[in-house]
Amino acid sequence: MQILDWTELGEAARTRTLARPALLDPIGRETTVAGILRAVREDGDAALRNYTRCFDGVDIETFEVAPEAITAAERSLDASTRAAIDRAFDTIGRFHVPSGKSEYRVETAPGVVCRRVVRPLAAVGLYVPGGSAPLPSTVLMLGVPAMLAGCETRVLCTPPDADGNVAPAILYAAERCGITRIFRAGGAQAIAAMAFGTETLPRVDRIFGPGNGWVTEAKRQVAQDPEGALSDLPAGPSELLVLADEHADPLFVAADLLSQAEHGPDSQVLLVTTSVDLARRVGLELERQLAELPREAIARQSLDASRIICVPDIATALAVSNRYAPEHLILNVADPEGLLPEVRNAGSVFLGAWTPESLGDYASGTNHVLPTYGYARQLSGLSVGDFQKSFTVQSATSAGLAGLGPAVIALARAEGLEAHARAVSRRLEAGEHDREPA
Amino acid sequence: MQILDWTELGEAARTRTLARPALLDPIGRETTVAGILRAVREDGDAALRNYTRCFDGVDIETFEVAPEAITAAERSLDASTRAAIDRAFDTIGRFHVPSGKSEYRVETAPGVVCRRVVRPLAAVGLYVPGGSAPLPSTVLMLGVPAMLAGCETRVLCTPPDADGNVAPAILYAAERCGITRIFRAGGAQAIAAMAFGTETLPRVDRIFGPGNGWVTEAKRQVAQDPEGALSDLPAGPSELLVLADEHADPLFVAADLLSQAEHGPDSQVLLVTTSVDLARRVGLELERQLAELPREAIARQSLDASRIICVPDIATALAVSNRYAPEHLILNVADPEGLLPEVRNAGSVFLGAWTPESLGDYASGTNHVLPTYGYARQLSGLSVGDFQKSFTVQSATSAGLAGLGPAVIALARAEGLEAHARAVSRRLEAGEHDREPA
Repeated sequence: MQILDWTELGEAARTRTLARPALLDPIGRETTVAGILRAVREDGDAALRNYTRCFDGVDIETFEVAPEAITAAERSLDASTRAAIDRAFDTIGRFHVPSGKSEYRVETAPGVVCRRVVRPLAAVGLYVPGGSAPLPSTVLMLGVPAMLAGCETRVLCTPPDADGNVAPAILYAAERCGITRIFRAGGAQAIAAMAFGTETLPRVDRIFGPGNGWVTEAKRQVAQDPEGALSDLPAGPSELLVLADEHADPLFVAADLLSQAEHGPDSQVLLVTTSVDLARRVGLELERQLAELPREAIARQSLDASRIICVPDIATALAVSNRYAPEHLILNVADPEGLLPEVRNAGSVFLGAWTPESLGDYASGTNHVLPTYGYARQLSGLSVGDFQKSFTVQSATSAGLAGLGPAVIALARAEGLEAHARAVSRRLEAGEHDREPA
Repeated sequence: MQILDWTELGEAARTRTLARPALLDPIGRETTVAGILRAVREDGDAALRNYTRCFDGVDIETFEVAPEAITAAERSLDASTRAAIDRAFDTIGRFHVPSGKSEYRVETAPGVVCRRVVRPLAAVGLYVPGGSAPLPSTVLMLGVPAMLAGCETRVLCTPPDADGNVAPAILYAAERCGITRIFRAGGAQAIAAMAFGTETLPRVDRIFGPGNGWVTEAKRQVAQDPEGALSDLPAGPSELLVLADEHADPLFVAADLLSQAEHGPDSQVLLVTTSVDLARRVGLELERQLAELPREAIARQSLDASRIICVPDIATALAVSNRYAPEHLILNVADPEGLLPEVRNAGSVFLGAWTPESLGDYASGTNHVLPTYGYARQLSGLSVGDFQKSFTVQSATSAGLAGLGPAVIALARAEGLEAHARAVSRRLEAGEHDREPA
């Protein structure tokens, strides 16, 4: 990893140092995805079946996984994975319970009561990517908040493996979250099926979950269509910034950087440190640990694009971190709690030497669906509130309307909206004759 | 207004009856807006000045309104408008205080504490459209939650009038909300300036507020750009659904329908009623009241596209309303409170005879920036939470990590991510020799 001295960089070099890799879609992806969406919207299951044959290489007659297969998954799963899923289900549940939107009521003026009321989204779609290994943690991170929000229809889509099956770890995690409708479909075609519905897949209001470039583009396109489905967070490559002082153990820092670097060749990891000595020792430790990793080649590629930034003091380190707005931020310093008030932009923060980032990926209880690519400046990680919506309610007595009415009439007339004023004045005139008890 | 019997309509006719007018952008709008965004991004204030000359017909040397002009607005404003702004500022503030995101802390496992922390967005842009009359209510609906969230940089853009000025009602409402940076710029060029920054306008994280088709398209485009700014809610024409039974006064119902119909020729109003007699009497009352309105022509146009739907019972009325998902819903029935639990999809709800929709537009305290076009199925109206973001924080002791670590290691290995497992196992091995107090 390249070691840079922040104080020696000019403004342009600083911007380059903290720049994300450009997200360049392959030429034609937008059009290809639009074609897939159109086909699934028009031909439903038949189109879904075609694309599944074409992209996943299997013939699927019935997309929905049979209930018996879901309940049988528990038995075919090895005991340690099952226990780990149970443990994570428990901690994620504990942390997410208070994360929903809250209801409240205020008497804003005499005789005028306003409320906020919360409702679950009626139907949500959870997307769990395929790949070389099953991702039960993704099922939990989407399924637990959907369950706690009380969304009535919860659909899970995941690509079938080469034999047309879904891994027991996925099925078991889904079952723990009370998800009963699991469909063997992946890619842009699965997103289209959830957004518009097919003969067998119900249409959903919002789609959650990570995916490759095709899935991301499909989520973007259906979210732009008023007939489609909303999306969760804009997806980007995973990121970690470790902020460390001279007290940090280089062995731990290197292990954390590598845990993020192994995600994919486009993952970004940054070490920002006040200690030049630590920077050097982490560099050596990285080499040592890299050699022992099964995904060494991937990690090496993402480390090539990553940097160690040396800063003169902790305040500068925090400024660099807030400017970068990392998805994951580890504060491996003597007093992490003391720095927290100065953290402005981050997806999730890990305090101290004993809180590796992978703890949050799996089991601390926080959600691992987080804003990447600098969106931590504006957005929050997934919570129960994302599976809900709220609306406001107001209720005035005739006396309440008489009290606030003049303000409404004056503002409506100032804005040139006479019918708005009259919806009040006609009532006040009628109320003179026919007043209800206030 | 056309009167329809819901029970006589087939499924396709029902869908047509509840369909929104298609949102067709004029040909070339997307390209024109993209051109404006590019020009402002590249040439900053110079481009903004050009477009302001071109579209608003005025030469603006200094975009920012002088502080003295803001403080002087109070004196040039008539007393009744000023008092009405003060009153609305008070009720909106009271209602919005509890609407922010909440912080909390949970010990998810022994020695593992997780938290949610809330931060204001650092910089927000508030857009207030121009037009025939100033819109101080829009300033309050955006400015009060921005103030309560504590956003450090709050910028307001509004198009200058023919003399290059901003109305005192706008300036005074902004001053009440503590907004000190007001810029005389409108249209797509103002959205571009706030999203990317210029020499004089600061770049913001998120842009709020209504606008015409050009503003809406500009907000959509900058929200798609990772270098741009997020947006608030997708904009659409205003809507009202009145759900009324035989107890409703046709005079009030007609006044409410007209208050929404006068917004614009594309506004949609629906009356859903269990009483055929009420339907007829509202029809007559509409004609009578229409003739007295200054915006009669506009209201008549939007009523032409609107409908009265007769239903056999209240349950069907609610089903129609939930299917339509109106921005505004008036429950003008004998027991509105009793119906509320069955309301699933609405932006804001108005209970009973004495709560006209215009009360919520101006002074009940609820926000009038609400989901339109069916988005009430998925989205919530504006609140303080939209001007904030949250992040999660976790902190484990070495004993806490020892307790949860095995679950992390098992899940990471099940997902084929060995470096994730080692970020835990290397710490646990080190901890054997060098354990900190738990």
